[in-house]
Amino acid sequence: MLNRPTPELLARFAALVGPAAALTDPEATKPYRMEWRDKYLGETPLVLRPGSVAEVSAILALANETRTAIVPQSGNTGLVGGQVPDGSGSEIVLSLDRMTRIRAVDPEGYSLTAEAGAILADVQNAAEAADRLFPLSLGSEGSCRIGGNISTNAGGTAVLAYGNTRDLVLGLEVVLADGRVWEGLGALRKDNTGYDLKQLFIGGEGTLGIVTAAVLKLYPRPKGQAVAFAALADPAAALALFNLARDRAGHDLTGFELMPRIGVDFVLRHIPGSREPVGTTAPWYALVEISSGHSDEAARSAIEDILATAFEDGVVADASIAQSLAERSTFWRMRHGMSEAQKPEGGSIKHDVSVPVASVPAFLDEAIAAIEAFVPGCRPVPFGHLGDGNIHFNISQPVGADKQAFLDRWDEVNALIHGIVARYHGSISAEHGIGRLKRDLLPAAKGPVAMAMMQSIKQALDPNGILNPGKMLRP
Amino acid sequence: MLNRPTPELLARFAALVGPAAALTDPEATKPYRMEWRDKYLGETPLVLRPGSVAEVSAILALANETRTAIVPQSGNTGLVGGQVPDGSGSEIVLSLDRMTRIRAVDPEGYSLTAEAGAILADVQNAAEAADRLFPLSLGSEGSCRIGGNISTNAGGTAVLAYGNTRDLVLGLEVVLADGRVWEGLGALRKDNTGYDLKQLFIGGEGTLGIVTAAVLKLYPRPKGQAVAFAALADPAAALALFNLARDRAGHDLTGFELMPRIGVDFVLRHIPGSREPVGTTAPWYALVEISSGHSDEAARSAIEDILATAFEDGVVADASIAQSLAERSTFWRMRHGMSEAQKPEGGSIKHDVSVPVASVPAFLDEAIAAIEAFVPGCRPVPFGHLGDGNIHFNISQPVGADKQAFLDRWDEVNALIHGIVARYHGSISAEHGIGRLKRDLLPAAKGPVAMAMMQSIKQALDPNGILNPGKMLRP
Repeated sequence: MLNRPTPELLARFAALVGPAAALTDPEATKPYRMEWRDKYLGETPLVLRPGSVAEVSAILALANETRTAIVPQSGNTGLVGGQVPDGSGSEIVLSLDRMTRIRAVDPEGYSLTAEAGAILADVQNAAEAADRLFPLSLGSEGSCRIGGNISTNAGGTAVLAYGNTRDLVLGLEVVLADGRVWEGLGALRKDNTGYDLKQLFIGGEGTLGIVTAAVLKLYPRPKGQAVAFAALADPAAALALFNLARDRAGHDLTGFELMPRIGVDFVLRHIPGSREPVGTTAPWYALVEISSGHSDEAARSAIEDILATAFEDGVVADASIAQSLAERSTFWRMRHGMSEAQKPEGGSIKHDVSVPVASVPAFLDEAIAAIEAFVPGCRPVPFGHLGDGNIHFNISQPVGADKQAFLDRWDEVNALIHGIVARYHGSISAEHGIGRLKRDLLPAAKGPVAMAMMQSIKQALDPNGILNPGKMLRP
Repeated sequence: MLNRPTPELLARFAALVGPAAALTDPEATKPYRMEWRDKYLGETPLVLRPGSVAEVSAILALANETRTAIVPQSGNTGLVGGQVPDGSGSEIVLSLDRMTRIRAVDPEGYSLTAEAGAILADVQNAAEAADRLFPLSLGSEGSCRIGGNISTNAGGTAVLAYGNTRDLVLGLEVVLADGRVWEGLGALRKDNTGYDLKQLFIGGEGTLGIVTAAVLKLYPRPKGQAVAFAALADPAAALALFNLARDRAGHDLTGFELMPRIGVDFVLRHIPGSREPVGTTAPWYALVEISSGHSDEAARSAIEDILATAFEDGVVADASIAQSLAERSTFWRMRHGMSEAQKPEGGSIKHDVSVPVASVPAFLDEAIAAIEAFVPGCRPVPFGHLGDGNIHFNISQPVGADKQAFLDRWDEVNALIHGIVARYHGSISAEHGIGRLKRDLLPAAKGPVAMAMMQSIKQALDPNGILNPGKMLRP
């Protein structure tokens, strides 16, 4: 049973980090209590901003001893409410935002050691300065922090070639619920000495321990790239193009993103600097990116080769290859603007789902038909990482409809789409995690055996339940 | 506390699989009791060979209820004694060798579902028949089974480009200690719904549950390959060549294996069909393999390009590129023969260690000097996967020395080498696991926090300790 901290206890916590790093004023704590989309606003009596592993350890030791709830937070960019306190006012926020050091860069060993509060873009830049690539890339990379990326096993646009965040972590330093520090900062490519403990904390959403630092994998920087926008009749054609591209380019296929015409329309309407990407208007589009270890020319030749075969096979209706670095950016901006461009179109009910890659076309056909029948006039805008089977199945409200009335149907629309996802053995959270938003959907999605295993692991590593209570699992 | 099964209980276990699948005769059970190198010979009153998940479940439910020890086994090719029963005669062996079905191959989804008893080569062949690659490749691939590969997180020669077995698993079906079946056979590339439970069983050495089936990742088959043998002055030159090759070829660098001259000498002396691989004799050699999504010519051109730069930079003394498929095989056979060729040279004390890739040269210099001082006249034959930092640091006895007297120094030699490994933050088991052989070395290697976490996870998932007791962890 957790306790509400007394003023005396709060003072003890604050003393562990010093007054400058202990925030109590509601205005000062607001950025830590508020989810960035305003979906959640929590209460907290105290935000602690420790500056070292030792301070994190001392905080957790005291919290465990006194049964005080701790909500770990890094960049506060999560999309499922996992990083903000609840409304009770009894949870202390532990922010990693002062622990931002890049401890080491090892270009020869293709690894980098960063503290949990390092901003993703800073990690990318530190790698680039050493002529290496840290491939994790997502919309919020300018403000999200690596500890949160690790704790949510973040996805993004580079998963196809480099994997999820899980695949990019070599070692971790973690403070456990009782304050013990696990020094797991190995940089080894192979290590079969016991259970792979780091896997529990990657995607653990801060419920099993607090990641304070990580050794991350680096890669050679591609020497060249080419990006094409292809016009397609339907998702089946997109899948055929994906398979062709993957077969020809293998690991050099570093991006394959699916977009519907309506999404392109929204972008053209609302995102400055966008332009019609291909001469031919088509119901669907794919952005294809090829990287090369040699040159832009090699990448371009590979993409031309793929598109030529796709034309011959009748898979692609039309396509255009970016002629410059600027045009490559424009193509990617079309894709990255897909989410933002939905906002001016009114209410949007969102899903972050995945199905097996080969099932994407059938899933899309079925889900689009179902939602159009369920909410007449609604405008499905499904887009995303086809190569990972990960579709952001967003639905814009009918034109002229009442926004709130549409959004009020969120849960029943979720139920409809997640029901279809389940029939395709898919996931209701491909890359955003569970947090608070999807916690009560989890038992049905995972089944009782998996839920019991998760509960027993939580019990084993955080027996007092002080770490991020109520997130992912019911307390 | 575990019980020794009574004859009545043994009969109940046998009835779960039927008489034909329950072996009791010591001659019939011997292949299941004996480790293939004769290092361990255990005792067992019963070998159960279930034919279905339901039978595995029934066995574990009864074992858990009656506190009976179960030793899971698949191909019995492990190198650390994890798969054989102890000498007490109270442990039942559960062999997966009848559950060999490839349940599904999905070329479009780049995945394959196999039962735990499927032989690795059969999995590779099933993938190839669908024009896909299952990249896991190791010496025992003709007899090891995929369940064992998963439970030991097997490595092999393709780790550099495709990762360890852990990286090749999309989903698992697992029978838990109490007989419950976890249906985790997802084929998703992205799924952030709760803890990634499969990670516990991958590399779990059968101590947390029994893997009965897996969904495995497939890849496009390379369209072409090129293999070169390069003569090198020292491991530092090998590392420079590796970095150059990786920088130029990226993911197309699919093999990079280091060998010392003495290992090549042993192969030339003892392995039929081997021949001097390069014109110039050198202290060290590297086998370099490049794959291409296009053609043999493209791979060859890439390897020529790399070697040309390496010559210019003075990194490589001489090199030869395989001119035919046959010559490629010969080059690989030189590498694969490295272990076998040590046998006729007398006693060999072995280590399966890893260090950060960039530290391999310094580690080798130090370890070779240390062992030569410690055992005058001994012949170090360190070889292996330089690109993964994984060195099989084997030491052949001095010429003419007494074999047993040399082997009697196994533990003190291990201690010397592992002490150096520890200073490089390396691993004492890079790819073979812990099992029985290295169990008592684990606490010093991992430290008390990691050991406590492992024990608490074991306790959470197998509270009665029936699964593979005494392997990896002390009971």
